[in-house]
Formats: sequence, C-alpha cells, structure tokens
Amino acid sequence: MSYETDIHDLLEAYKSGDLSEDEVISRFHRLNVTDLGYACLDHDRSLRRGFPEVVYCEGKTIPQAASILTVLASRHANVLGTRASRELYETVKPDLPEALYYEQARLIVLEKEPLPKDPDHKIAVITAGTSDVPIAEEAAVTAETMGNEVMRIYDVGVAGIHRLLGRVEEIRSANVIIVIAGMEGALASVVGGLVDKPVIAVPTSVGYGANFKGLSALLGMLNSCSAGVAVVNIDNGFGAGRMASIINHLR
Amino acid sequence: MSYETDIHDLLEAYKSGDLSEDEVISRFHRLNVTDLGYACLDHDRSLRRGFPEVVYCEGKTIPQAASILTVLASRHANVLGTRASRELYETVKPDLPEALYYEQARLIVLEKEPLPKDPDHKIAVITAGTSDVPIAEEAAVTAETMGNEVMRIYDVGVAGIHRLLGRVEEIRSANVIIVIAGMEGALASVVGGLVDKPVIAVPTSVGYGANFKGLSALLGMLNSCSAGVAVVNIDNGFGAGRMASIINHLR
Amino acid sequence: MSYETDIHDLLEAYKSGDLSEDEVISRFHRLNVTDLGYACLDHDRSLRRGFPEVVYCEGKTIPQAASILTVLASRHANVLGTRASRELYETVKPDLPEALYYEQARLIVLEKEPLPKDPDHKIAVITAGTSDVPIAEEAAVTAETMGNEVMRIYDVGVAGIHRLLGRVEEIRSANVIIVIAGMEGALASVVGGLVDKPVIAVPTSVGYGANFKGLSALLGMLNSCSAGVAVVNIDNGFGAGRMASIINHLR
Amino acid sequence: MSYETDIHDLLEAYKSGDLSEDEVISRFHRLNVTDLGYACLDHDRSLRRGFPEVVYCEGKTIPQAASILTVLASRHANVLGTRASRELYETVKPDLPEALYYEQARLIVLEKEPLPKDPDHKIAVITAGTSDVPIAEEAAVTAETMGNEVMRIYDVGVAGIHRLLGRVEEIRSANVIIVIAGMEGALASVVGGLVDKPVIAVPTSVGYGANFKGLSALLGMLNSCSAGVAVVNIDNGFGAGRMASIINHLR
Amino acid sequence: MSYETDIHDLLEAYKSGDLSEDEVISRFHRLNVTDLGYACLDHDRSLRRGFPEVVYCEGKTIPQAASILTVLASRHANVLGTRASRELYETVKPDLPEALYYEQARLIVLEKEPLPKDPDHKIAVITAGTSDVPIAEEAAVTAETMGNEVMRIYDVGVAGIHRLLGRVEEIRSANVIIVIAGMEGALASVVGGLVDKPVIAVPTSVGYGANFKGLSALLGMLNSCSAGVAVVNIDNGFGAGRMASIINHLR
Amino acid sequence: MSYETDIHDLLEAYKSGDLSEDEVISRFHRLNVTDLGYACLDHDRSLRRGFPEVVYCEGKTIPQAASILTVLASRHANVLGTRASRELYETVKPDLPEALYYEQARLIVLEKEPLPKDPDHKIAVITAGTSDVPIAEEAAVTAETMGNEVMRIYDVGVAGIHRLLGRVEEIRSANVIIVIAGMEGALASVVGGLVDKPVIAVPTSVGYGANFKGLSALLGMLNSCSAGVAVVNIDNGFGAGRMASIINHLR
Amino acid sequence: MSYETDIHDLLEAYKSGDLSEDEVISRFHRLNVTDLGYACLDHDRSLRRGFPEVVYCEGKTIPQAASILTVLASRHANVLGTRASRELYETVKPDLPEALYYEQARLIVLEKEPLPKDPDHKIAVITAGTSDVPIAEEAAVTAETMGNEVMRIYDVGVAGIHRLLGRVEEIRSANVIIVIAGMEGALASVVGGLVDKPVIAVPTSVGYGANFKGLSALLGMLNSCSAGVAVVNIDNGFGAGRMASIINHLR
Amino acid sequence: MSYETDIHDLLEAYKSGDLSEDEVISRFHRLNVTDLGYACLDHDRSLRRGFPEVVYCEGKTIPQAASILTVLASRHANVLGTRASRELYETVKPDLPEALYYEQARLIVLEKEPLPKDPDHKIAVITAGTSDVPIAEEAAVTAETMGNEVMRIYDVGVAGIHRLLGRVEEIRSANVIIVIAGMEGALASVVGGLVDKPVIAVPTSVGYGANFKGLSALLGMLNSCSAGVAVVNIDNGFGAGRMASIINHLR
Repeated sequence: MSYETDIHDLLEAYKSGDLSEDEVISRFHRLNVTDLGYACLDHDRSLRRGFPEVVYCEGKTIPQAASILTVLASRHANVLGTRASRELYETVKPDLPEALYYEQARLIVLEKEPLPKDPDHKIAVITAGTSDVPIAEEAAVTAETMGNEVMRIYDVGVAGIHRLLGRVEEIRSANVIIVIAGMEGALASVVGGLVDKPVIAVPTSVGYGANFKGLSALLGMLNSCSAGVAVVNIDNGFGAGRMASIINHLR
Repeated sequence: MSYETDIHDLLEAYKSGDLSEDEVISRFHRLNVTDLGYACLDHDRSLRRGFPEVVYCEGKTIPQAASILTVLASRHANVLGTRASRELYETVKPDLPEALYYEQARLIVLEKEPLPKDPDHKIAVITAGTSDVPIAEEAAVTAETMGNEVMRIYDVGVAGIHRLLGRVEEIRSANVIIVIAGMEGALASVVGGLVDKPVIAVPTSVGYGANFKGLSALLGMLNSCSAGVAVVNIDNGFGAGRMASIINHLR
Repeated sequence: MSYETDIHDLLEAYKSGDLSEDEVISRFHRLNVTDLGYACLDHDRSLRRGFPEVVYCEGKTIPQAASILTVLASRHANVLGTRASRELYETVKPDLPEALYYEQARLIVLEKEPLPKDPDHKIAVITAGTSDVPIAEEAAVTAETMGNEVMRIYDVGVAGIHRLLGRVEEIRSANVIIVIAGMEGALASVVGGLVDKPVIAVPTSVGYGANFKGLSALLGMLNSCSAGVAVVNIDNGFGAGRMASIINHLR
Repeated sequence: MSYETDIHDLLEAYKSGDLSEDEVISRFHRLNVTDLGYACLDHDRSLRRGFPEVVYCEGKTIPQAASILTVLASRHANVLGTRASRELYETVKPDLPEALYYEQARLIVLEKEPLPKDPDHKIAVITAGTSDVPIAEEAAVTAETMGNEVMRIYDVGVAGIHRLLGRVEEIRSANVIIVIAGMEGALASVVGGLVDKPVIAVPTSVGYGANFKGLSALLGMLNSCSAGVAVVNIDNGFGAGRMASIINHLR
Repeated sequence: MSYETDIHDLLEAYKSGDLSEDEVISRFHRLNVTDLGYACLDHDRSLRRGFPEVVYCEGKTIPQAASILTVLASRHANVLGTRASRELYETVKPDLPEALYYEQARLIVLEKEPLPKDPDHKIAVITAGTSDVPIAEEAAVTAETMGNEVMRIYDVGVAGIHRLLGRVEEIRSANVIIVIAGMEGALASVVGGLVDKPVIAVPTSVGYGANFKGLSALLGMLNSCSAGVAVVNIDNGFGAGRMASIINHLR
Repeated sequence: MSYETDIHDLLEAYKSGDLSEDEVISRFHRLNVTDLGYACLDHDRSLRRGFPEVVYCEGKTIPQAASILTVLASRHANVLGTRASRELYETVKPDLPEALYYEQARLIVLEKEPLPKDPDHKIAVITAGTSDVPIAEEAAVTAETMGNEVMRIYDVGVAGIHRLLGRVEEIRSANVIIVIAGMEGALASVVGGLVDKPVIAVPTSVGYGANFKGLSALLGMLNSCSAGVAVVNIDNGFGAGRMASIINHLR
Repeated sequence: MSYETDIHDLLEAYKSGDLSEDEVISRFHRLNVTDLGYACLDHDRSLRRGFPEVVYCEGKTIPQAASILTVLASRHANVLGTRASRELYETVKPDLPEALYYEQARLIVLEKEPLPKDPDHKIAVITAGTSDVPIAEEAAVTAETMGNEVMRIYDVGVAGIHRLLGRVEEIRSANVIIVIAGMEGALASVVGGLVDKPVIAVPTSVGYGANFKGLSALLGMLNSCSAGVAVVNIDNGFGAGRMASIINHLR
Repeated sequence: MSYETDIHDLLEAYKSGDLSEDEVISRFHRLNVTDLGYACLDHDRSLRRGFPEVVYCEGKTIPQAASILTVLASRHANVLGTRASRELYETVKPDLPEALYYEQARLIVLEKEPLPKDPDHKIAVITAGTSDVPIAEEAAVTAETMGNEVMRIYDVGVAGIHRLLGRVEEIRSANVIIVIAGMEGALASVVGGLVDKPVIAVPTSVGYGANFKGLSALLGMLNSCSAGVAVVNIDNGFGAGRMASIINHLR
C-alpha cells in the first residue's frame, strides 16, 4: 500500500464519518510504519521507490540489527543490510536462510525476487587501486541487488594512464559510471573528461598520512575540473551504488 | 548549608571577634569542599542547584571514580556517574547497593530520594536513527534523575519525513525538546521549524567518513536555519539532559 | 489564521463536496504562504509561534529584502529584519515609517503592537568585552522585540574575575542568561558554574589570529565544563535572543 | 570532426605512406585543439559531448577570457562563460552581439542554435532560501542552455517544512532534482527522502559564522541520511546544472 | 666539559700545530656527542643548561630507549625519561637500580645527585579536573627533578569558581604557575587574571567530542583574554615543567 | 587602592556597623571599577600588577576606545593602547598630548611616569624575517613601556643559520627571549636549543599559501623539539611583550 | 618490451593488414598489462623507468599482495613491496626465497639483479630524532634498491644545532638530501639553508598532541623559509627514496 | 668571498696573534652579512649557491624592500625580487635602470650577467589551466634567471586528457618538470605517471569553494599515487622554479 492509497483511504473514511477530524489528522502520517522502540521501520518508502529496504547496521547492536532485518524480510521480498559484520550474518541466518553474505562488501543480501536487469543500461564500477576494491564491491553488489547490470574495472589509476586508456571504449559503453579512488582521487577527473555519462565519485580513506582519512580524495573529487562528476561520502560504496541505480532507471 | 549561609556565619564570627580578618578571608571560599587530593568535591554546588551531584567518570581511574562516588553518596541523596564503565559499577556496588547501572547510557544512578516529576512539563527526546539511541538514553535517564517526565521518540530521521510528521502533535506537547542526530543533523532544523518550544540539539559521531567524528552534525546543528535551536557538545547526552532539565524547571 | 484552522477548513470543504480529493491534497500544505518568486513567505509560522516574523537580510539584494519586509508588514504587526544595512533601512523607511534602525545591532524593527514584557522574567545579556557589544545588542533588541525585559551587563570577562563576581546576584535574578564572548569564550563556563538558570552562549569572532574567526570561542563554549550551557552559531546574536525568548516564555 | 574520425584519418594516411610512423604518433593526440599560448582549446570535447563549450572566466584576465570566448564562438554555435563579470560581457559584446548576460547567475550565454528541450524530462531547481538564488540561477540557466526544461522552486527550506510539502507533487514530476542550500544544507536530505529521482546537492556559502564558507552545508549534504543524493562543490551551480543535464539526457 | 672549553682546546691545539686547519674545522662541532647510530647524544647540552638529560621514550623501541638511558646515566648524575612505559622501566632497572618509575606521570627518574630546591621560589601546578592529573604529575615531577619546590592544587576548574577563589592566596605565593586543563581550558584565563606571575598553560586532550583531542583547550588557552599566559603543546606536561623550571631559576 | 585595602575597609565598616551585611556583600567585588556601559574598567588590576593599564582597541568604535583611554589616563600615569589606528591616535591626542603613536607596532603609549629599567635583565626580541618586524615592534615597545631594557635582533631566520650563530652570545646575554617568526617558525626551536633562558614564541601570519594565516608557524612552535619554549597567539606581539616582562621582573 | 616497441609493432601489423583498424585501436593501450581481477599490473612502467616494480601492500589482503608480488617476480628481476607486514613476508617467502624483509622499514625486497650504485652520487638520509628512524630506513632501503649509495645521518635535530653543524661537510658531499622530521619539522629549513643540493623533506607523525598526526611537520616543511626544499606525504619514506633516486640518476 | 675563505682567514689571523681567541669566536659567524636593522643580508649565501640573491618583497614596506634590492645590487650582478608590486618596481627603477618587471609573475629581475643556459637540460613548466599561468610565469622566469632553458606548456589539464597526451614526448624531453594546478591538482599525478623525471608540483589557490584556498590541490598532490612527485607551498611558483633549477644543475 502506497502513501497515495493511504491518504485516499483516510479521506474516504473521514467523508463517510467513520473517522473524526482529529483521528484523520492523527492517522495521517503514521501508516505503513512499524515501531520497534529503537527503530521506526518505514515500509512505505521501499514500496514507493521500487528498491529493496536497506538497513545501515553499524552502530546498532546485533540484536537490534537482526530484529530489523527479520521484520523487514517478513514484509519485503528483498532486503539489504550494509556495513554488516559476519557475526550479524550468522545471527540472522537461521531466520533468513536465503540471505547471502558478501565479505569484502560487508553486505547481507536477501533477494527472494531479484529485480530484472537491463543489459543495455550498465553501471561501470572503476577503482584506482586494489585497496579500493572493498568499497567498489559494496557499490557493485548494491547496484546489482537494485536491478542493474554491473561492469567491474579495477586498478586502473592514473599513475599508469594507459591502463585506463586501454579500456575507455568499455567504460563509454556504460550508462552510469562509479569511480572509486583514495589518495588524490584524480581518477574521477580523468574519467569525467573522457566520457559523456554521469560519474558518481566515491573518495576512499586509502593512503598515506596527509590523506587524512579520505579528506584528500574527497576534496580532490569535489574540485574536479571535469563537469559531470558528483560526489558521495567517503567510503560510501552503498550510496554510490544506490545513486547510480536511481539514475540508471530513468528513461 | 548553602554558600549564602556560609558567608553569613563567617561575617558573624568576624564581627564577634571569633575570627581575625585574615582568617575570614582565608576561610571565605573554602567551606563545603571536600579535598581528596586528586579531586575537590563541591557539595555546595549540588545543594544550590537542586540537582544530584554529577561525576564525569571517564579519564579517572576506577579507584578515583569509586571514591568520589562514595564520598558524594555519604552527603547527598542522589548521585549520578556519567561515562561510567560496568567495571566501575561493580566496584562501587558493595558500597552503594541501591545504585543502578544503565548499560546503553553508561550511567550509574543513585536515587535515594527521587525528585518529583511534573507530568505537565515533559521533555521529549527524539533521535534520527537507532544508532543514536545510546546518547539519547544518556540524555533521557539524566533528565529523569533530575526530576523530569521524559517522552522517547526514536528513529524518526528526515530521510522519511512522514515518520516525523506523524508524531508532531506528540512532540508539540512537550515543554522542552532534545534532538539527537548524527550524519548531517538535519532533524534539529526540521523539528525546530515545527515547534515553538526550545530545542536542545546533540550532534552524534554516527556516520560514514566525512562525518569526521560528529563534526558534520555539529556544524549542521549550529547552522540550523530554524531559530530556537541551541547545541551541546558531540555525543553529550548528559549535557543535553541537564540543560533541558534546567529549562524545564523554570516557571 | 493558523495551520490548525486551515486544515480544518480544507477538511470541511472536502466533506461538503466543495473540493475534490485532488484539490484537498494540493491545497493541503500551501495556505498561508506568499510566493514572491525569490522568496516564499510563511505567514503561518509567525502566527503559530507568537513572535514577529523575521527576515535574514544578508545575501538578499536590497530590492528583494525591501519587498519581503513590506509584504510581511502588510500582514503582521511586528517585523524584524536582521543583518540589515542602513541602506536597506533607508529604502524601506518611506513604506514603513514606524520602523526603527539599530545601528550596532544591524536590526530593522517594526513594532506596531509591542509584545508585553514580564518584569519578573528577565533575560540577562552579558559580554566578556566591549568588542562583543554589537552581537550583544543584536541579542538584546531581538529579545525585547519578542516581548522580554532585558538586563545588559557588558565587559565583565574572566581576565578580571571580580568584575563578574560583583554582579553575580544581579545575574542570578534573571530567568535566562545569554553569554557573549570571543577569544577563548571562558565567560560561558564561569557564568554557567555560578547560576542555576539556562545559559545560551554566543561565540564571537573577536580576537587575535588563532581565534580563527570565532572557532576558538565556539569550541571553548561547546566544551564548557559547566552543565547548563548550550551554544548557538558564531556571532549569532539573533539566534540567542530568540532561543532565550522561547525559553523565557515557558511557564 | 570527432576524435574517432581523427584517429581513422591518421591511420589511413599512415597506411598509404603519406605519414611516417613518427608523424602519426606526434599528430595522434593533437588534432582539434587550438593553442592560444595561455589556453589550449579543446573543440573536440564539446562536439563529443553534445553540449556548448564552457569557459570558466574567473582567474583569467579580461583579454584572455574574451579571446577564448571569441575563438570558441567562431567554431561553435553555443558558448557558455561562467563566473563572468559584467565588464567581460561588455568587452565581448561587440564581437558577439547575440550573447546575453545573466547578472545574478554571472553567466555569458551565446545560443545561436538553441538545443531542443523535452518537456517530459524536467529538471527542478530548489533552494532553501532567497540568498541561494544566484547559485540556483547559475544552475538553471546552465541546464537550459544545455537543452533542458527547468522548473524553479525557491525559498522552501526546512525551517518551514510545509512550504516544501505543499510542492512535493510538483517536485516529483521532475526527472532530476537540484537542491541548493547553505547553512546546514538539510533540504537535500529532506527532498532526497521524498522523491525517487536523483538529487544533485549544491552547498552554498550562505550563513552565519560556523558555516565556514560553505563547509557546514557541504558536510551536511555529504552525510545526508537519504540515499540518492550526490554533491558538487560549494557554490558550484554550473557543475550541478551540467551534471543534471547529463543525467537528464540519458534514455 | 662545556662547549666553551671544547672550542678553547681546539684553538689551542691548532695554534700549537697539533691539529691542522682541516682537523680543527672537522672536530669543531663534534665533541661531547655520543653517536649510537640511531641516536646522537648531546652531553654538552645538559651540562650547559644545568638540568638532567632528558630522553623522549615514545616512538623508540625498548632496546633503543634503554641504551640511551644507560649511556646517559654513565656520564650524568641525573637522567629523566619521559613517556616511558613500565616495560621500559623494568628493562633498565637492572642497570639503573636507583631509577624510580612514576606510573601516572609515565616518567623514569634517576636522581643520583638531586638538585637543590629553593622553598621561596615555588612552582604551582593547578588542574581543572581529576582527569588532568596524569599530565599534572608529569609536569610536577619534571619540575621537582630539575630542582624546584612544587605545590599541587588539583580539581579547581571554573565550573565551581569558589573552589579556585578559596586558594588564590596560596597560588599567588608561587613564583611560576602551571595551569592544566582540558575541555575549554578556561582555567588558564581565570588564573591569569588573578595573579601577576607567569602562567604556563597546558591544554589536555580530556573531554567530549568537539574537544577534538585537545584542540578546544589549545585554542582556548592561546586566545586567553588574560595577558601573562603562554602555552605548550597538548598533554605536554614535561614541556611545561621544564619551561617553568627555567623561569623559576632566573634571578 | 588595592583589592586588599578595599576588602579591609569593607570589613572595618561592617564591624563598626556602618554597613549592613547585605551592603558588604554587594559592595564586596565592585570597588575600583568604572562602568562606561560598554566597558567596565578595572583600575585595580593595573595597580595590583605594577603595569600600565592596557586597552585592546580593535573591535571597539573610535569614540569607545577614545573614552576608555581618556578615563584610564585620568587615573593612571601610564596607559597602553594596542592594535590602535592612527585615526584613534589623532582623536585622543588633544586630550592626551603626551601620548605617542608607534606606527609599525600600532601602539598608543602614554608614559607620564616611565617605569625603571634594569640593564642587567634584558629582553631580546628576535625575528626570522623583515616581514615579522611590525609584530616584533609591538612586543618590544610593550616590554619597554612595562619597564624592560630591550635588545632587537631582526632578520636572522634559519635559512641562513650563520647569521643567527654570529649573534648567539648576544642572545645568551638576555634574561628572557622573544622569538617571532612566520612560515614554519623554526627559529624558535633553534634558539630554544642554543640558550638556557625562557623563550616566548610568537607565530606570525607571514608567508605563502599553506601558512594558513599563521597556523603553520603556530603548530611548528607548539611542537618545538626544544624544551623551554612556550607560545602565545598568532601575531600577538603585545602578549609576548607582557609575558616576557612578567618573567623578567621575577627575582 | 617497451611502450615504444609495442606501438611500433601494432602499427606494422596494421600496415601489413594483419590487424584491422578496430583491432589496432582496441589493442593500442592494453599490452604489457596483467589483469588479476583485483589488480592490473603494469609491467611496462617499470621497464620504462629503469626501477624495480613496486607494490603498496597496505590495504590489500595477504593473498592479493602475495599474488601480485609473485606475478611481478616472474617477469622482473627486482621487486619492492612497501608497508609490508612480516606475515606477508612469511607468505611469499616459499615462492621468493631470495626476498629479504626489512623490519623497521616494513619493506620486502627482491633483488635478483642489483642495480649499480655510483659512489660519487650519494643520497644523504638525515633524521631529526630516533623516532624518525623507521621512515628513514624505508627511504634509505628504497633508494639503495633503486641503485643509489646512501649515507645515514640520524638524530641531529635542531634542538642541539651543533650536532648538525658538525656534519655539514659530510652532508654537503651528497648529491641529493632527504630530511625526515616530526614535531615542527624545522630540520628541513636548516639543512636547506646549509646546502646547495635538492632537499626532499618527509614530515613524520612523531610528536605530542598538536602534531595532529604529522600536520605540524607537514605545514612546517611546506612553509620552509629555505628554497630548494620540496615535500612528500607524511611518513612517506618510500616516496622520498624514489624521488631522490630519480633526481640522483639525472646527468 | 665564501664561508670557507672566511673561516680560513680567521684561523690564520688567530694563529699569527692578530686576533685574540675571543675575537675569533665573535667574528666567526658574522662575515659577509650586511645589517640594515630591519634586514640582515647574507651575501655569502648567494655566492655559495651560484644563484642570484632573492628578496621576498611581500610584507616589507616599499622603502625596506627598495633598500634591500639596492644594497644587494651593489654587491651582486643578478638580483631577483619576488611578490613585487609595480609600485616597488617604479621606486627602485631610478637606481636599478636595468631591472625588468614581469607583471603576471610579480617579479623584479636584475640580470647584469645572465647565467648560461644548457639547452640539453630543459625545465618544463606545465599548467592545468589558464588561471594557473601567473604562478607558472613566476616559476618559469625564476628558473630562467637562475640559468635554465624553460619550455612552457599551458592549459593541458586532465579534463581533456588528450591535450596532454599530445605533448607527452615534448614533456619527456625535459630534465625536470614543474606541474602547476589548482582545483584537484590531478595533473601532477598523471604527468608523474608518464615520465621518469622528477616532478615538482605547485598547488594553486584557483577554484570553487571547497578548494579552500589551495588546500584541495595541496592534499591532492601530496597524496599523488605517482612516485617521483614532490610538492612546494601553495602558489609558490618561485620555490618550484628554484628547486627545479637546483636539480637541473646537478651532474
């Protein structure tokens, strides 16, 4: 039931006199929410957006995260848990036997009704180095779970520019491009200058001292001299995957 | 005995000749203080302010913190220990058997004479997410211990704005509002725009990379476009609880 | 007309069939707003909160700010313009002859129906130095316009602590306290330790080099060792005045 | 002539013996570039990407910027100059009489062959306040010049959330959304939670002290709790307009 | 042998023909240095300055630090090791049985010929809180080892200003004052305003989130509104002790 | 009249019945203060500390600063105005004809009864470069006004270390040393290693880009590898002069 | 096979008709690269530059790093692994028995055909303290592996300037100089002023609090008042070694 | 007369009895320095290093800078003034008629005996954009004045990578390379990966908001994923030119 349906029903009930004015107002915004005390699950959102419901697991206790995942799985076919530990996965597995765990990406994926993927609208996930791969996998698996064909191109940073140039045509064949880089983050600018597709840049906290936990790559990407580049948070592979997926489903 | 009483007695003793001028001056400021060497307990403050005496336990050794709590408990009915470890609690328990430990809030609470609570002057404690709950509990239990009715509304962050809108009337019924959020801290601005009560905002260190240990939420809340919002330190649930309690006791 | 009235009328019109469901939804949130293209005036807010409508004038062109002030003045008795230049004041004066300009505070105040002030609930505005006075005046005049008795205590910074100590009783007689200081902002902590009333701290950008445009005072106040202190943005006298006024009207 | 054509011609000439191996390599990358000494114009890029050629005018002298604009106008139908002063506009106007100047947006626009706009794929440009309008206009005019229908929704910041809620359906009708906000930048998170379209967030340097020239809004937007939000540089209306346009032309 | 003696001997040997010009130059600066490969011990410095030789142990391996301490002890009566672990102490103890270990201060002290202390020139070491005591002990023991009478006054922070005021005369009796505080560091300003003796301020990394590992106290102290305050590095109790000792030995 | 005298008189008056208890308390801290509304002049402080009264003129309006200077001059022989503009000087000159203006140092100095200077206790003021001279002059004139013989040694930065080495004996003859440097501030460490006198370091905002308005020199000096160095605020020549003077008057 | 050879072969094959135009373009940039999925090894680079191939091991899993090292060793005589753990070394040792592990420097070095070293072109590696030695060893061993004679001069920081002065001639005999220092990094400026050779400065994260993980030394070195100093990343001994080696091989 | 000659003469005079021991020591370091009071000119340095004497003019008054330039010109054939205003140039021109002024580079150059240039050892100066040209000219003219052939390659930033690739051979023909870029500074990494010559990177303060006055380019360059890159201060074209020249004169 979508938000639109809910509001329609409320108004109908009010018109018919089944609900008083006060009751209408009080119920107005509360439908489609499950309140667990420490969490307030918004089932409506996932329905409205056509994507799996997502749980950010870090900062929650194992029992809290496990309950949230289980409740969501009872109402949604597809559920994604990000920044999930293996311990959390082992905890929910008895209840969610179909769930998979992606170690590098730290994702728990439950895909009872996988979303269709359009091979003509691919998302390319590109990394500057091998150390960026865990964040890249978080982006790639997120995008796949949300119904996108993903092409992985790893370790093509600008220190050896011809590795990148050798794969330009491949990259240009994608519809949306995610660039993941630490250190100075220059790869986003170079890729942005080579393609006419949107580039989502993810700075990573990979690097020596003055990287300052990703600040150098973050500033580098924000200041990209190439237009057509927008940036998500440091190490936020999930956010990049979701943003790319939203763009990739536009027609 | 308050500061006012002390100064009166000193002046009397001086007038009657019991104390020399020098003695008056030297005793002037020292009454009502217990000096443990490493700590200088100010019994007067708690009396003057009508609140339990509070011990910030972090950065003190277990024996130091335990002594301070025990000495205070010998002179005050209600004592609060913040940022307290379970180990500290186990250490003081034999001496303070009525003391309780709130795990999430990391508080030790001794409430031999609980302060009265006025149900018509509630404090609402609102969080953006589940990960903010430990700080929220620190604020809520602090406020309760200081004699306030507390209403908890958790996980209503702005990413799903109707979760919040569904509870606006409830929030408006509070006298003072504490908003606790990490990431961008936007919840403070949105709540501030919806109510005409004071909002105490607590930034938390919850979030991905460029959160920079709470800096993003801190700056977000300080720059709130809603007036009627003031901010305490990052993760400082105690400070918010106490500030809200002081405001809530004004008449 | 308040938000509550609006929603009532809409629901009535819907019930009676005067409005279709679609029309109800579309009108639902739009009442009580005047759209000037570059500004979207929210008349409802001021009514709901019992305060004058406020215009932040900085960053707007003179014609924009002047139009906004004039439109608001046509629907509200009291209007406040913050960060207003004298040039703006001269521009609006022909249309708003009762408006006053406070040079130091940079405020334009239109008070056709001054709000009543309760002499038993004063707000104290305290500064560390003379250089903090413009921000203090912004806070004080804001609070006065919003219906508060204000007590000004200026230049009592901690470098000469007995200046402050000599006025403690006066300060304690206030219901809410605003402390304004640059440099290290220590005054907030000292005042916070001397009173049992809420302290709103305003860091200012006054000081030598490593003040970093108010950062030192901001961090100092956020890290205040006294509880009962909350902080607003650097140089934000208006925000402090409004926050103090909201608190001061609680009963 | 595109990059692909160039490389084809070079290879043909080499095969036929018209060019030696050395000549092929040396000419390989240099076609389609005009070297002015202080600037190296890349005509190929604009052709390849289907957009007007863009000149970032700030930091260039008036004569440099004017020459670059004129040279580009001699080879391209549409040219855009960003961060352009009125003085620059007056300088180039005799040579480019069709050029327009957008004062607020600081753009020089030459549109001899305006690009077609698809009314079913709109870009919404939303601001939190009136002070954000100049950056919004830079984004909006950029997007229009690049062939997009633009819908402007200004001054709907979260301090008065129902202003925004009243226009949600309108916003949802857009294909791509640009959100422009200073202060805490919360509008991006709230909009991101209400739509299922990509949101490009532009932090602005509007605000009081601890805004730190846009840092607060930047961090706020990067840490947005809503997925589907990506960020460009502070005050970078052009970058947002171009990114949105690239996304809006995907099918 | 001091630097002055060395240069005299070199010149004599040169005059007498015992050393060639080249040899003079090459030996010129190298006397009184023991080179251990990884460390270059400067015996001359300690002689010249009348203080024990000091070893900063952090960042050195246990064997390196132990060797340095042992070599110095073979040529100097008094040696001080700062930031020393208990493990290091256990390692050097067999070789330096008279050495003492100060756990809180993390100091190893070898005092074979304790320096005389002048009871009329005391150094006061004052802390804001109990958590600052370890740094205070580092300062106090350093000063004692360097031949100073030390007066400890702990936990008299400004949140309860009368604790401090009660001890002003005691503090004024010192010749040099060290103030150690975390959080906002306000104690330095208050003390600086109460005395006419030099105040050495030590910011500590004690505090909640926006303390940023001592930055708030550091900036607070640097921006002290009281003159007569100078600052050393965060948590640098040793530096404060040594600076105070140098000042305290001036006549 | 000193603070000590005041308190004695108050107590006497109380004992004799001339003052009630309440009156004693209220007068207790207020003597020796002149309240100008925007400024609260603390005459007692200067008397107690044996130094001229000092006015920080920046951030005050010309009339405010002029009044403060004039009032102080009516009660004190010696007055110092820091960060004073020539315009302010011209304003006060008719009232204070003996006042001098030091252009580079931006100081107004009124010295009706110059303090005696001890030629055996000199303060050395050393700069790394010529650009640091204005701050050095602020320090030097401040120290002179407070009764100190000053020795100026300018432009002996570490890039040409033998310039400094050639003057070591001269520097060692001083009792207190002020080192003023921008850029990396290395001069403080080098001087600190060459002398056994206290070094007050003043970072300046002189330098290229990554100097960040003095931050590089500030951090450099705080992290000095030489003990015996303490730091005052960026460009704070006055603070250094006063600190050095306080130290230089110790016996 | 170098890049130059590859392009020649491709063009020949195209001319002879062995390769179609499309095949030429697709193969153009891809030769001499081994793709392991998570890493894309660029053999050509090392050949072209005459240096060993280098693997940055941090952030890679042990199996990933081990595979990369082994594949490189199968095609190159000399391989260097930086930031390598002992565990990684133990893993690769069975496959690469000639490989050595440098514990302090955290380097794995495989040198089957050591590069020749020119004794007339030495690189000096100088540290301020003993704690900087691990970074110095990373620089020194890197430079040696790349074919340079290295001279180590450790613990000659500026706090005892004559330790440094005694070794100036030795330092001047080097062709390139690496200066490694934490704290304030002043050594780079002093050395830069004493020599006329290029100085590569490496800031280290050694030091007390306000060192901020190397920031103080980094800013200090960037702001060096001596010309002829350039800086690499914090703790980046490898980068300094390689930069020095490149310079040292120029003729 | 070099430092070596000076020390020889001093020792000779001492041996012959013409100078007492004290006189030797006192004269030891002071030769070859002209003291102007506010400046201490070190003639020896320029002789020793074989380069023109350089004056950093910013932060000096016009008369100070003019005197320094004139004194140096009286003893040296070649003098360079950096960050010089046209006003300064007009002031010195009557005294130094051969001096030239480079407007963009802000350099005053006096070249009475131009240093020889070796055409086989060129320095390449490369910029990312047109806005970087003033800094590039400062570097280029500095290098030319110090006796180097310079090759200028401007506006070849990575947003259009083939502009750069078309000039790789030209760049590789240089002996030392200076890369100048603002925004994200990615050009340094890309060039560093394409050449086997030392790259000196200069971050510039060119760019939109989050460039933070060059910080983004600075961090980007320090974190360059290409080895063989070292960095000088933001906008420090002079430093890069001098560093490159020192390297370029090595044989």
